[in-house]
Amino acid sequence: MVMEKEFLKSKENAIESLRKAKIDDKVDRKILFILDLINNSGEFYTSSSCAGRIVLLQIPGIGDKRNAKFVGIWHRTIKSKEILSALKEAKSGLLWILAQPPIIHISAKSRAAADKLVKIANASGFKNSAFKSDNNNIVVEICSTERLDAPIGEDGILFCNKDYLNLLVKIANEVILKSNLKLKRFESELKEKL
Amino acid sequence: MVMEKEFLKSKENAIESLRKAKIDDKVDRKILFILDLINNSGEFYTSSSCAGRIVLLQIPGIGDKRNAKFVGIWHRTIKSKEILSALKEAKSGLLWILAQPPIIHISAKSRAAADKLVKIANASGFKNSAFKSDNNNIVVEICSTERLDAPIGEDGILFCNKDYLNLLVKIANEVILKSNLKLKRFESELKEKL
Repeated sequence: MVMEKEFLKSKENAIESLRKAKIDDKVDRKILFILDLINNSGEFYTSSSCAGRIVLLQIPGIGDKRNAKFVGIWHRTIKSKEILSALKEAKSGLLWILAQPPIIHISAKSRAAADKLVKIANASGFKNSAFKSDNNNIVVEICSTERLDAPIGEDGILFCNKDYLNLLVKIANEVILKSNLKLKRFESELKEKL
Repeated sequence: MVMEKEFLKSKENAIESLRKAKIDDKVDRKILFILDLINNSGEFYTSSSCAGRIVLLQIPGIGDKRNAKFVGIWHRTIKSKEILSALKEAKSGLLWILAQPPIIHISAKSRAAADKLVKIANASGFKNSAFKSDNNNIVVEICSTERLDAPIGEDGILFCNKDYLNLLVKIANEVILKSNLKLKRFESELKEKL
């Protein structure tokens, strides 16, 4: 069990950061209601979240993700021409298209609470959910497994032809659409079970 | 704390399965020493593992991973011609090349033990390690983040040209080589800290 006072203090800080992020429109609206549901429970608070996104990434060399640069970020489905347009910003290095499912980090007051949340997440399709703990802090990560991680070009030039790019975009969009459905399912499971 | 008797009984079964798998040469040799190190500790037992692999997957439609068929599996670095040769087996559906880092599932006796193992894994480069628990069973998953998940063809025909295939294979091999290094680091960290 995390110390009550410590947990409440950290929760207060997290809620204040979230309030500011909401004002700055920095929280994806698709996920806002879920964050509020979780934060309204005495057992949890959310520390970070992303509702799922498509990313165009420029990496200096294979594996050098530390020096990666975001060439494009979309928290929605996209069209191939948006990739082509964003590519104009890319100069050197390997280009990757990534589609990432939602990810939410949540601090839990106890292991039992963390277990409960992971179970609700699993039942909602977020099969890649688990937790880590460090001293008194238990952090649950809610995530699912569908994703796309594909290199598509180098030094600002596409490797793939138009048909292939269209397919990659179709698959990336599929990740976003599935993510949206899972978020909706998670929201109703939380309403019922939390 | 998991019940001592229950834990020992499950460990006994897991060790027996592992012994049989070793005889049938079904355990990757690169990971065997790590499994033994973990199983020699009173706090853990391993339940499943993979030392990292490159996979050629055939999927009927986008997202239909449930009906996926393995066209090729390699627990080592590969050459592009091995992909081309394996492709001959592929008839219909979308073809993906996947490079997956090592994954190890370990039951832990207590949350403190699970915490310790996740910390050792993180220090060895397995940053995507965490645990789940279900009643008295705590399962740690050791994993890292580098991966490749790219569609490369459909109905037995490659989308990508030779240069692009070579790049994908180079990236997939990079995942395997990095995995090998991380496994070695994990092994020495376990020797020192477990």
